[in-house]
Amino acid sequence: MRTAFYISDGTAITSEVFGHATLSMFPVEFNHKTIPFVETEKKAIEVKNLINSTAQRDGEQPLVFFTFVNHELSEIIKSSCAVCYDFLSQYSDKISQELKVAPVPKVHRTHSMHEKSYDFRIDAVNYALTNDDGANIKNYSEADIILVGVSRSGKTPTSLYLALQYGIKAANYPLTEDDLERGTLPECLKAYKHKLFGLTIDPVRLADIRQRRMANSKYASLKQCRIEVREVEMLYKKQKIQFLNSTHHSVEEISAKIISDTGLERRKY
Amino acid sequence: MRTAFYISDGTAITSEVFGHATLSMFPVEFNHKTIPFVETEKKAIEVKNLINSTAQRDGEQPLVFFTFVNHELSEIIKSSCAVCYDFLSQYSDKISQELKVAPVPKVHRTHSMHEKSYDFRIDAVNYALTNDDGANIKNYSEADIILVGVSRSGKTPTSLYLALQYGIKAANYPLTEDDLERGTLPECLKAYKHKLFGLTIDPVRLADIRQRRMANSKYASLKQCRIEVREVEMLYKKQKIQFLNSTHHSVEEISAKIISDTGLERRKY
Repeated sequence: MRTAFYISDGTAITSEVFGHATLSMFPVEFNHKTIPFVETEKKAIEVKNLINSTAQRDGEQPLVFFTFVNHELSEIIKSSCAVCYDFLSQYSDKISQELKVAPVPKVHRTHSMHEKSYDFRIDAVNYALTNDDGANIKNYSEADIILVGVSRSGKTPTSLYLALQYGIKAANYPLTEDDLERGTLPECLKAYKHKLFGLTIDPVRLADIRQRRMANSKYASLKQCRIEVREVEMLYKKQKIQFLNSTHHSVEEISAKIISDTGLERRKY
Repeated sequence: MRTAFYISDGTAITSEVFGHATLSMFPVEFNHKTIPFVETEKKAIEVKNLINSTAQRDGEQPLVFFTFVNHELSEIIKSSCAVCYDFLSQYSDKISQELKVAPVPKVHRTHSMHEKSYDFRIDAVNYALTNDDGANIKNYSEADIILVGVSRSGKTPTSLYLALQYGIKAANYPLTEDDLERGTLPECLKAYKHKLFGLTIDPVRLADIRQRRMANSKYASLKQCRIEVREVEMLYKKQKIQFLNSTHHSVEEISAKIISDTGLERRKY
């Protein structure tokens, strides 16, 4: 199998995201290997040697996606026997012409704590944890959004993703059978109706997820899941709460849709 | 201010990461605007109109970073008055020549739940939450890694990031004053020494973080923070536990360093 390397003087997250997106267009399997924090010539030469020995082992040239601020380190990697894709440099030249501004070399520009959004993001993670699963209803005035839904419909991972990636303060509150039977919003949510966003899920998938958590319980039975999902969707419609079905979507997709549907301000780009 | 758009038929995360990394090389401020899930011609035309009206408002051509699987949607966006960067297509042509394989168009290839890693990642998030802050010491045999450190040294956000992004099951355990005074590892960790990874932090920064949580307490005093940090670092050295200083690093950087230093297997690329 051919090897794809993602290499950088920083986290290499940009190289990974770009390389992965590009390679995922091809029906070909790769060994993936990320090497972050290649910050010295010594380290770059070690990496070059690793690339060369990998090429020998695989009997095929590796593909290398890399970003470096230091041009000398780039040159060392490019002198390996791999096919190298210096994807940012090429675009920075184009954009430099367009902006009529020269790029300013600076390491750790992205994915570091020097980004303006960093403290927001950590505060938002703490907020999401403190306000997970209805644990803390007195902080809702601070929330950017309050996710609601039946147990295991995807609220918690979505809250954490919104916080970690975008610095959005997302609380979440589980709507229980009692709440649903009453057919009205719980008291603690009424004042925050404008911040509510509902999740729903296919009952078969829900039962499957709940089975893994509490096998053979009433909670995990398909019958119970069908009742809860039907009632929660009725509640959303009656209360005019925006909602989406999480069944076929990843947390990345759910989060992107929520931000797009609500116009929430994200604190990170 | 000039506007930068990130547009896709999926989450637009790839466009954001690439566009943000490229633009961050220039000392220029932008209005950032992400538009995900542009999946129909109707939606693409709306977006084109928005780009054009933005250009008029700004008095400058927007920059547009986009990825589309559907060629017709690309063409609609390209017919706007923006400067468009179709950054994946260009590389997919190069890589196609290199691999001698044609790309296979398919939407939602990245950042969707169809990635093999998706269930791992959600399981890992649940694991990180259940095993946060020493809450559950009986599951450590399942852990891929157990982060240790004094209170507020960055364990929780790092555990969550490792889980959400990489599907790594990261527990975390707070080393308290009592643990540190004994100078030995707590009993519950002894069997898992090979899984431990320590975090440390500058005492001044630690005191600052703790002040925000519990102002004017002994817990947040600089004196207390200095003692705890000195003792925890001694413990790491004595017990030969790998550790890193989180003071100047983001969760992305800490996570990338941990994976790189430990050789942990990540379940997502």
